[in-house]
Amino acid sequence: MSRYAPVPFPKVKLEGQFWHERLETVLARTVPSQHKKLGEFGILDSLKLPDPPPPLRFPRHANGFTVQVFWDSDVGKWIEAASYALAHRRDEDIEAKIEAAIDDLEKAQAPDGYLNCWYLGREPDKRWTNLRDNHEMYNAGHLLEGAVAYFQVTGRRRFLDIMERYLDHIYANFGTGPNQRRGYDGHEEIELALMKLYYLTGERKHLEFATYLINERGQQPPHYFDIERELREASGDNRQPYVFPNYEYSQSHKPVREQDKVVGHAVRAMYLYTAMADLAAELGDAALKRACEVLWNDVMETKMYVTAGLGPSAHNEGFTHDFDLPNQTAYAETCASVALIFWAQRMLHLDLDGQYADILELAMFNGALSGLSHDGEHYFYANPLESDGTPTRWEWHTCPCCTMNVSRLVASVGGYFLSTADDGLAFHLYGGISSSVPVAGTTVAVRETSDYPWSGDIAIQLDPEQPAEFDVKLRIPAWCKGASVAVNGEAVHLGNAERGYLTIRRTWQRGDQIALTLPMPPQRLYAHPGVIMNAGRVALKRGPLVYCVEEVDNPGGRVQRLRLPRAAELRAERRSDLFDGAVTISANAISIDESNWSNLYRTEPPAQREGVLTAIPYYLWANRGQGSMLVWVPESS
Amino acid sequence: MSRYAPVPFPKVKLEGQFWHERLETVLARTVPSQHKKLGEFGILDSLKLPDPPPPLRFPRHANGFTVQVFWDSDVGKWIEAASYALAHRRDEDIEAKIEAAIDDLEKAQAPDGYLNCWYLGREPDKRWTNLRDNHEMYNAGHLLEGAVAYFQVTGRRRFLDIMERYLDHIYANFGTGPNQRRGYDGHEEIELALMKLYYLTGERKHLEFATYLINERGQQPPHYFDIERELREASGDNRQPYVFPNYEYSQSHKPVREQDKVVGHAVRAMYLYTAMADLAAELGDAALKRACEVLWNDVMETKMYVTAGLGPSAHNEGFTHDFDLPNQTAYAETCASVALIFWAQRMLHLDLDGQYADILELAMFNGALSGLSHDGEHYFYANPLESDGTPTRWEWHTCPCCTMNVSRLVASVGGYFLSTADDGLAFHLYGGISSSVPVAGTTVAVRETSDYPWSGDIAIQLDPEQPAEFDVKLRIPAWCKGASVAVNGEAVHLGNAERGYLTIRRTWQRGDQIALTLPMPPQRLYAHPGVIMNAGRVALKRGPLVYCVEEVDNPGGRVQRLRLPRAAELRAERRSDLFDGAVTISANAISIDESNWSNLYRTEPPAQREGVLTAIPYYLWANRGQGSMLVWVPESS
Repeated sequence: MSRYAPVPFPKVKLEGQFWHERLETVLARTVPSQHKKLGEFGILDSLKLPDPPPPLRFPRHANGFTVQVFWDSDVGKWIEAASYALAHRRDEDIEAKIEAAIDDLEKAQAPDGYLNCWYLGREPDKRWTNLRDNHEMYNAGHLLEGAVAYFQVTGRRRFLDIMERYLDHIYANFGTGPNQRRGYDGHEEIELALMKLYYLTGERKHLEFATYLINERGQQPPHYFDIERELREASGDNRQPYVFPNYEYSQSHKPVREQDKVVGHAVRAMYLYTAMADLAAELGDAALKRACEVLWNDVMETKMYVTAGLGPSAHNEGFTHDFDLPNQTAYAETCASVALIFWAQRMLHLDLDGQYADILELAMFNGALSGLSHDGEHYFYANPLESDGTPTRWEWHTCPCCTMNVSRLVASVGGYFLSTADDGLAFHLYGGISSSVPVAGTTVAVRETSDYPWSGDIAIQLDPEQPAEFDVKLRIPAWCKGASVAVNGEAVHLGNAERGYLTIRRTWQRGDQIALTLPMPPQRLYAHPGVIMNAGRVALKRGPLVYCVEEVDNPGGRVQRLRLPRAAELRAERRSDLFDGAVTISANAISIDESNWSNLYRTEPPAQREGVLTAIPYYLWANRGQGSMLVWVPESS
Repeated sequence: MSRYAPVPFPKVKLEGQFWHERLETVLARTVPSQHKKLGEFGILDSLKLPDPPPPLRFPRHANGFTVQVFWDSDVGKWIEAASYALAHRRDEDIEAKIEAAIDDLEKAQAPDGYLNCWYLGREPDKRWTNLRDNHEMYNAGHLLEGAVAYFQVTGRRRFLDIMERYLDHIYANFGTGPNQRRGYDGHEEIELALMKLYYLTGERKHLEFATYLINERGQQPPHYFDIERELREASGDNRQPYVFPNYEYSQSHKPVREQDKVVGHAVRAMYLYTAMADLAAELGDAALKRACEVLWNDVMETKMYVTAGLGPSAHNEGFTHDFDLPNQTAYAETCASVALIFWAQRMLHLDLDGQYADILELAMFNGALSGLSHDGEHYFYANPLESDGTPTRWEWHTCPCCTMNVSRLVASVGGYFLSTADDGLAFHLYGGISSSVPVAGTTVAVRETSDYPWSGDIAIQLDPEQPAEFDVKLRIPAWCKGASVAVNGEAVHLGNAERGYLTIRRTWQRGDQIALTLPMPPQRLYAHPGVIMNAGRVALKRGPLVYCVEEVDNPGGRVQRLRLPRAAELRAERRSDLFDGAVTISANAISIDESNWSNLYRTEPPAQREGVLTAIPYYLWANRGQGSMLVWVPESS
């Protein structure tokens, strides 16, 4: 099978209601308001060297650093998101703001190419002394992603040149050569950024340094983080770790090819695995591919929330033990689900298997999208699956990583829909899109008309410039039973999907019509009994969307009082009054009576009343004021 | 009603199987092994000034301190526990060990009376600069409790003299006078210790200083912890808080009489409330009593585990929000349940209401006793109500506070059984005891014969030296329905208990026999629906004992697979093979089939099999190897 590659987002126009709305919100509200917040919170000023103004509202951490050590990355990520926005429509004001940040970065850059504003402005003599904690390469990676995106959209090289000078500095100082330090960052990110630069420029030095970083990670003894700690201590710098001193936290406990359990900080893990999958594909490295598959299976079998949220614990912002998926205290950082999308996309193109696209879609519509409010200007960092009404979306965060992760994702979401190979065109996500792609020696105009994810009826028209024989691969989601396909009105009998895709090979002609029907009745999902938090509970899902019950739709007290009888019929309803036309799920249900309790415990079971339960898509929760919320509803018989 | 006061433990001999076994274990194994551990871990050596050897195995905390700042308290608490042990039987070896520690303390004491070994040994110029974090008064309080106990048992004054010199130093430096600092400790403890010293000596200065500490707490602006922080910073000491900078953590967010919600670190809160109740009684302070009652109700209505565990969160070792009582991650520190017993006892003697004794008993048999292993040499610091099999009891802890809290409790448990007033004798706890108490102008020999808590049949013989008329108050636990009483074989019809006690007033004669029957069929308990973690779950209880299901009694996989049908009969069985004769509860139950799962989620509900569930008393869990455990069992219909 020839290798499939994604069709980049600037070539995929979003026309359907769902993604068009999200994209317009991000372009019109999220990206501009994020720049405003970067200004208000001193993040833009932090680039103004040699004397950045003191930051506001940020207490010093016990180790003497603050979240400011990450701020370069936030600027880089905003430039990336803003550049993607520019690809949809140019905007002089946004471009001027990006250029102003690049001005500051250019001025800040040291003569030897070094460019980390925190160290340059505060402890220039300490640079590269603490890769474990202080994110210099991580920041470089995000700046690089911003520079790549800005160049791709505008053709302007200045930021890219700055970053290439910085990379040359890094390459000179780190590596396996004499006089080089065998360092790598505590927070992975630069690896996948380097792969983007390599794909852009074709320069092998970037691939080689990414390979070095992946290969060096976790080598021991001695462990690099101990080497540098000893050097710090010898110089009198005894500051304690930012968070954790353990290697697992940064996935550096063993060489990556030997890693078989997902551990540590969830976002770091996902960025690492993304780069590993990139490299496995680029190098044809079977051991690396195998490690990716083993780690993937570990996530799928024991560590993922039903929303594709990752990392149950706030303690390490990451993974704990198998089946530990508490709902109310779920950390499930937005960034982790966004990064899971990155990893899933790399896995999908390493091995075209629908299981990866299923998770990509699940994370997209649930764990990632839940991080952005309907109005596009409020966020969740943690995405719990249950709420007593306390959590609310915030306007900004002391560590604003998630805000720009979700905006850069939505602004580039078109890039996840289609892939092409020499003789094939694959459809991964569905919705209303149009594109024009090269396949089998011709150019094929693609128009997909669908109200997905609200409806599973998908109409695809293909218009090849010349008739051409090639595969059309249609992803049949694992959640879907009874999918059917017709070409030009005639049913196609292709048997079951193979590895998640139905393949139609024929000579395609201008005007050919594919009708794909993905039935999406509301479903009940049960968790592995190992997930004890969900014992006796059920989750509702329709198509790719996980649902939740929210107090505003279920007035009369906290939704934790609800019980869904197992036999109750689930009714889907399109609601034009709700978020521009969302589909709700409702059912006859039981409501527990919370009145007449004095102390916490009693011998009589709580009384019950009959009622109705109404659920909305999870990603839409917490957009209508404060209130309780529940994904996993106790089931009664 | 005349005021009741507890009969001190040296006057109450434990003869019944249950407490006799626990006491013998603590005397023979716990107290000696704790001294060994204090030695092995460097805690005893930390008293050896001026040059204590460096501690082993204790990494420095980010703020430059370590758990060593608490070590004086651990020595004090061990001396207290060991002294209580000596009250049961003298032991030259133990006495020599106590004396050796007192030698070190005496040598360590500064000429001005100051006595904190951490500061004296490491930062003598910094003493009293950080009451918020560094526990100087807390340590003094625990040393003082040790000194009081040792004096009471042995009559030896040396330790008490040392501590009184230290207190004079403290009184000179802190208070509302000119040239005094208005400080109080971040970790309450000294207040209740001062009350013990006041009760022992009658010296009002101790009562007055305790009153000052209680009254000063939370006064602002300015807040004392800010005053001292500013002084530290002015002297160049910018070390960060040990844990939390917020006032709620140490219950200093407002004056104590205005506090109406239980907040912060659970043990601190309980020690504070204990002292508040002591003072409310001693001073007749109605506002303080009212604050105690409001705080008590807040705990009972929204914040207590069914085991009388307190403080759900490891984050602050304390309280969070109403109804937040997660099971698996419950912190429920042993010390907090022990301290709840102290508070409950003070409340009970402030106002003889069975609700306080009910909670005292609940905490005793469950949340506190669970902290000590059956063998008497292993511990739990946190007492979760659910386990996936990971937690195990440990031999020692870097912060060994809980170990000596449970040993000093058990060694003095006899002190919680009886109270006397001028014309009354009250029975709070039941079991096999004998005592001799002054009531109504005569001395009454009391012998209670019972296999409580395994049985609710209680026989009491009273032998007054002279016939005397007085009240006998028998606590009827709130969990008990259908209690009956006979005197000398004749049923007594007294109606319902009033505020938890049945009162029998008559002229008691030598040989009078009271037969109290407390039926204790196994019960199901349901949690307030606000405790969403327990939605659809049921807890089992029999008498004062909360039960749990443990994997060792329910082989075939994790106990989280079990479902208890609502209608299933609960069967109690005395098991001579189990922990010297524990009573189990068993029932026909359902077992969820964990096999045949591939990924984490699926649309088919898990399959079920019929089986049997066996539960043991919660306090006995984790004594037979590792395995899963569950207090709140999902209930099926």
